[in-house]
Amino acid sequence: MSSTASAQPAEKDAANLTIAVVGATGAVGIELLRSLEARGFGGASLRPLASARSAGQSLAFAGRMVTVEELTEDSFAGVDVALFSAGASISRHYREAVRAAGALMIDNSSAFRMDDDVPLVVPEVNGQVLANHGGVIANPNCVAAIMTVALAPLHRASPIRRLQAATYQSASGAGAAAMEELRLATRAALDGKAFEPKVLPHPYAFNLFSHNAAIEGEDGYNGEELKAMAETRRILSVPDLAIGITCVRVPVLRAHSIAMTVQFDRPMAAAEARALLAAAPGLRLVDDRAANHFPMPSEASGVDEVLVGRIRTDLGDPTGCSLALFVSGDQLLKGAALNAVQILEAIQSRAAG
Amino acid sequence: MSSTASAQPAEKDAANLTIAVVGATGAVGIELLRSLEARGFGGASLRPLASARSAGQSLAFAGRMVTVEELTEDSFAGVDVALFSAGASISRHYREAVRAAGALMIDNSSAFRMDDDVPLVVPEVNGQVLANHGGVIANPNCVAAIMTVALAPLHRASPIRRLQAATYQSASGAGAAAMEELRLATRAALDGKAFEPKVLPHPYAFNLFSHNAAIEGEDGYNGEELKAMAETRRILSVPDLAIGITCVRVPVLRAHSIAMTVQFDRPMAAAEARALLAAAPGLRLVDDRAANHFPMPSEASGVDEVLVGRIRTDLGDPTGCSLALFVSGDQLLKGAALNAVQILEAIQSRAAG
Repeated sequence: MSSTASAQPAEKDAANLTIAVVGATGAVGIELLRSLEARGFGGASLRPLASARSAGQSLAFAGRMVTVEELTEDSFAGVDVALFSAGASISRHYREAVRAAGALMIDNSSAFRMDDDVPLVVPEVNGQVLANHGGVIANPNCVAAIMTVALAPLHRASPIRRLQAATYQSASGAGAAAMEELRLATRAALDGKAFEPKVLPHPYAFNLFSHNAAIEGEDGYNGEELKAMAETRRILSVPDLAIGITCVRVPVLRAHSIAMTVQFDRPMAAAEARALLAAAPGLRLVDDRAANHFPMPSEASGVDEVLVGRIRTDLGDPTGCSLALFVSGDQLLKGAALNAVQILEAIQSRAAG
Repeated sequence: MSSTASAQPAEKDAANLTIAVVGATGAVGIELLRSLEARGFGGASLRPLASARSAGQSLAFAGRMVTVEELTEDSFAGVDVALFSAGASISRHYREAVRAAGALMIDNSSAFRMDDDVPLVVPEVNGQVLANHGGVIANPNCVAAIMTVALAPLHRASPIRRLQAATYQSASGAGAAAMEELRLATRAALDGKAFEPKVLPHPYAFNLFSHNAAIEGEDGYNGEELKAMAETRRILSVPDLAIGITCVRVPVLRAHSIAMTVQFDRPMAAAEARALLAAAPGLRLVDDRAANHFPMPSEASGVDEVLVGRIRTDLGDPTGCSLALFVSGDQLLKGAALNAVQILEAIQSRAAG
């Protein structure tokens, strides 16, 4: 581990760790518990934290029940690692308490993602930046995480010069309440009943709309698009990568899909890209032209790997240097909880190695 | 009217026309009747035609009931205009019968769209090509129609050099049975019941998938994408326009949405594009950044105009010559029935003028 780290969880075996999960009852929180259990942290001491409203709830973890405690400044005593997924303002508010407790913070919010001293990490893509951190590691925006897993193997073979993307984002990105709103609104529509949206700004049943993040600035991009662009550049270490992206919320429950066109500095044959992606970690190739079988949310949901397919030379680029591809990845897993736990794994294995 | 036309419907007033609608009981057929009625053809003599299975059904038209007749070679005696929407093989099979009857064929299928002697028409975009036809006029693919309505006003101001698009296509493009499958599959999913898809190749409830048209050829594009590319080039009269497109079926009932990036031969400010689009026929500007209100299928369904918005400089193009925009248009209306009736209107008004 880096000498700059204030926290040293990696010096302990997983079974001796004390892990706090902030936002444990949320859509991502539930998946954090599942991913911790699935990836060898079931023996750790778990401290699920949430707002007072959720305190006292019991959650299943690794064959036992754990009780949700109210998040306070004192919650981190004895904690080695705190996984945060309760929004940027909570992360900012408790950063000092986590640091004071000597714990490592792995933060799923956008609070620190662009801070120079906070690594922004997708382990398969830029795990090496974990060598230096100041006690906080940022987990990327879901679109950036899912895109960069698919882009990195190609970018290593031939630098990416330009990226064009349109997203098909699921309800889960707006939390468990949005998933429930999609179900309720859809049932009402099928029954011919009125439904007033409460969580999302537009009707969601059999409908789609521009991502609900507010438009920021004069350029007309929304907050989700700005995050996806800035974080993709940072994770791939290409500060001047030209990216155009349109983020759209579609009536899907929990996996995000993205149509991408990637321009390289030389022509890259679809066959070469397919071989690179098939061999890369964190991806599963789903690219069966004869069966018309490509990545889709129903097959990406609950799956750790990001599905990638529809790999073909993009005919919109007369130079032949662009490829089109389509990915589907579970927003709650690679887009959030799984990636956070993989960061913890990588920290542990750096120390062990 | 052109001297090459074998049919002369335009020499008659609308009330004296006899109009056949082939495929009258399908999703597009029903909308053809509605659009004919709404646009001044309610006084015409209507002859709804369909397969033997549907013959004898009664359909409402302009305040009266009309009876569906079985489509045969003899169906076109006395017909002035035959609107076809029953698939390419039906259109090919009956072309000669329509010609022999001296009727004009306005065909919603892909059968003749790329034939040199068949105009492919979106009236707001290239109505002038109606001056020459050989008795058949083709109605474009829904994606091509919806895209070109939005592209044409921009292309007139500054030639388009390149187009990148990702679609969000509704169930209606696969017909009434696909719309019903979306409803049934979704209700089953909400009820936790199994559902076996019969119309579309993949599960549709809260899911999306690459367009169900088969992949054709080595390039890896599907039939829908190939149609959208070829027809967009033909309608805009830019035979070498570079287009990259990804067509995706989303769980929406009847309006298609498309995220587009358009590269011009010079920088075009978003404000200039907005003014051009606001003034153009067939479009409705929905571009309220403060309210995060942009085109969406729920507001495009049942509406004649194509909604256009999210107009902004595309940051993926370092030259600043590209704009991003997002459209939603009713697949059954501008994408099919309405455009066919607008073609008939244009033919009538050419003759009257």
